[in-house]
Amino acid sequence: MSACCGRPPVPACEGGTASPPPADDPFGRFARMIPNCLQYAQEAKAKGRRIVGILCEYTPREVLLAANAVPVCLCGGSAATIPDAEAELPANLCPLIKSTYGYHVQKSNPFLEMADLVVAETTCDGKKKMYELMARTRPLHVLELPQKADDPAAFEHWLHEVRGLKAVLERRFGAAVTDEALRSSIREMNRERRLRRELAACMKASPPPLRGRELLDLKSSISCLPGDLAAYEKALAALKARPPCPDLATRVRVLMTGVPMVHGAERVMDLVEDHGGLVVALESCTGLKPIVDEVDADAPDPLRAIAEKYFHLPCSVMTPNDRRLDLLRRLAADYRPQCVIDLAWQACLTYDVESARVKALVEGELGLPYLRISTDYSPSDSARIAVRVEALYETARARK
Amino acid sequence: MSACCGRPPVPACEGGTASPPPADDPFGRFARMIPNCLQYAQEAKAKGRRIVGILCEYTPREVLLAANAVPVCLCGGSAATIPDAEAELPANLCPLIKSTYGYHVQKSNPFLEMADLVVAETTCDGKKKMYELMARTRPLHVLELPQKADDPAAFEHWLHEVRGLKAVLERRFGAAVTDEALRSSIREMNRERRLRRELAACMKASPPPLRGRELLDLKSSISCLPGDLAAYEKALAALKARPPCPDLATRVRVLMTGVPMVHGAERVMDLVEDHGGLVVALESCTGLKPIVDEVDADAPDPLRAIAEKYFHLPCSVMTPNDRRLDLLRRLAADYRPQCVIDLAWQACLTYDVESARVKALVEGELGLPYLRISTDYSPSDSARIAVRVEALYETARARK
Repeated sequence: MSACCGRPPVPACEGGTASPPPADDPFGRFARMIPNCLQYAQEAKAKGRRIVGILCEYTPREVLLAANAVPVCLCGGSAATIPDAEAELPANLCPLIKSTYGYHVQKSNPFLEMADLVVAETTCDGKKKMYELMARTRPLHVLELPQKADDPAAFEHWLHEVRGLKAVLERRFGAAVTDEALRSSIREMNRERRLRRELAACMKASPPPLRGRELLDLKSSISCLPGDLAAYEKALAALKARPPCPDLATRVRVLMTGVPMVHGAERVMDLVEDHGGLVVALESCTGLKPIVDEVDADAPDPLRAIAEKYFHLPCSVMTPNDRRLDLLRRLAADYRPQCVIDLAWQACLTYDVESARVKALVEGELGLPYLRISTDYSPSDSARIAVRVEALYETARARK
Repeated sequence: MSACCGRPPVPACEGGTASPPPADDPFGRFARMIPNCLQYAQEAKAKGRRIVGILCEYTPREVLLAANAVPVCLCGGSAATIPDAEAELPANLCPLIKSTYGYHVQKSNPFLEMADLVVAETTCDGKKKMYELMARTRPLHVLELPQKADDPAAFEHWLHEVRGLKAVLERRFGAAVTDEALRSSIREMNRERRLRRELAACMKASPPPLRGRELLDLKSSISCLPGDLAAYEKALAALKARPPCPDLATRVRVLMTGVPMVHGAERVMDLVEDHGGLVVALESCTGLKPIVDEVDADAPDPLRAIAEKYFHLPCSVMTPNDRRLDLLRRLAADYRPQCVIDLAWQACLTYDVESARVKALVEGELGLPYLRISTDYSPSDSARIAVRVEALYETARARK
């Protein structure tokens, strides 16, 4: 990854060779995201709080927080754990699922090892079936996500599942989940979502004060760490004070959509930005998708309000997933991209097939060049992706 | 395919070179299955009956029959339509889905072209998303199948969906679906299921009076054609009168499980039987899975009874899918296979991942050799499959 405006590159991407940033640097804090989360989880566990592994943005963190549990994202971003996963899972499966399962096999994810419970979901076929194998040796609860996004009865079944999750937590952890606690966790999550939205909104500027790859690092495997919330505020203030970076003004503005790029799996975004692009908006679950909508903390039934927000996440597992197209329209208007890159992990069938609708929207309605990238966690196709990305930028520049 | 006991091979497998069987030969009738169904559907349509395309065994045919509609299975078994599908769908997708969609693109499936409605379902990721593309130009209703197979609330949501299907048919076709009509269609479907079960049960004998591939042909894209029901009865009588076939006694008895092998996509079964095997039980949706259980025609609420039978189909889209393991145990006890072959179409993620559990059951609990075959509709890997199948049979014979 190239540095920008003389600022040091994000150390996590440089194999730890850069000197450590000062302790009060908010960007430096997120470069230490995993150690921060680990320390927090260990201290919380020592104080008797339960650690709950989650693997999807549909899992409502507010309910877990209201049960005084610590929700930790377990999604794997490492290619190194995949061979061990493939001893049981088919090779032709999403690398995120295989990486996550590889950590389970190796017992090498400390968060999973300290988890009192894993909350899984029937979102996509691959995860749904992988969880069955994980459940042989881990305490695991499955949330059923109905998939007709616009069907009121489907929502009611989802609400039933969210109420069921609350009951499971109360039973397992022996503590009531009160409406008051739910409202408090809603406010906390809303605050984090708002701060992350404001950080993302910095990318609307031309040029913006940071690269998309820097923004991608401003997130955490555990939501609402007090230190993170303070760092988000500091980062916002720092970005508002940053002088414009001329280099960023010459890049092609990219809207990225599709699958999440979890910690460790940012290779495609690096390629996109190392070859002349600037990711001004990331629509995925590691970008804007989970933070654009808030939950009404004052709703008469906070659990219903939570269920509504989560049910309407525009993931491709939903059918039809018109909300994703609506979100892309909004992001295109607000962030003024010159092209769209649609990323699908290998064998992520829902994003793969939905690409047909996204392509039609981008080329037909938004009038932008579109590139679909299907890849996995192996760097073997990086050169090929770079060539395709550069060709996309040429097309985008020609239309400028 | 080899002939057996001097009886002519099934003409459909010989490229039509065999002379046509006599008109009253029940096996010959099923060799003309597609023309029979087409004639029936055309005549029904001319009389004002509605044609409804279905693509899954979860779709309850009884409800469609009770609405005086003609349910026709649209699942594609042809490799020839796949290239046209891949213009929009990803190549890395189940061939059954691609073939079906290719017929849609080409407008080359006469049943789809005459369909007044397609009833789709949220069963697997690939189909669910393919249906969205099909729905752009076809009248299509999606049934939501909840996937926590043992959850009472999931069943209630499914029942709601089945009631919703009835309402959709009543509204679209302008005719009430009465309990009386439901009970009548339940009895008709029960009769067909019973006859097909009895035919399948012929394979319990050692040697049985027919090959698995012959049995596979005894089914129809449209259920309960009067001519088919009569032919099933005739076939049963004929099989009971057939002398034992010594060739079949020397073959390795195979239990096949996994994905359906729809009309035109029987290549793997041909390989299995052309290389020394005999498929004594086929657990899949084109075999025993949909016909082992009946619906109680006298239940107080026939729609609920229908919903129950269908909800408990042991497909790998369910989680956990313990009922499949139970069915395999039963089939192993009843049909005494010497080995198990588990077939997964390329990128059928649910069957792919569930293979780990099936393998553990077969090798660990049933003590049988197990072979997993992952392939598509192209014959390019036939030689490789044949070698693996022969190696499996050697292992099975060594254990005899």
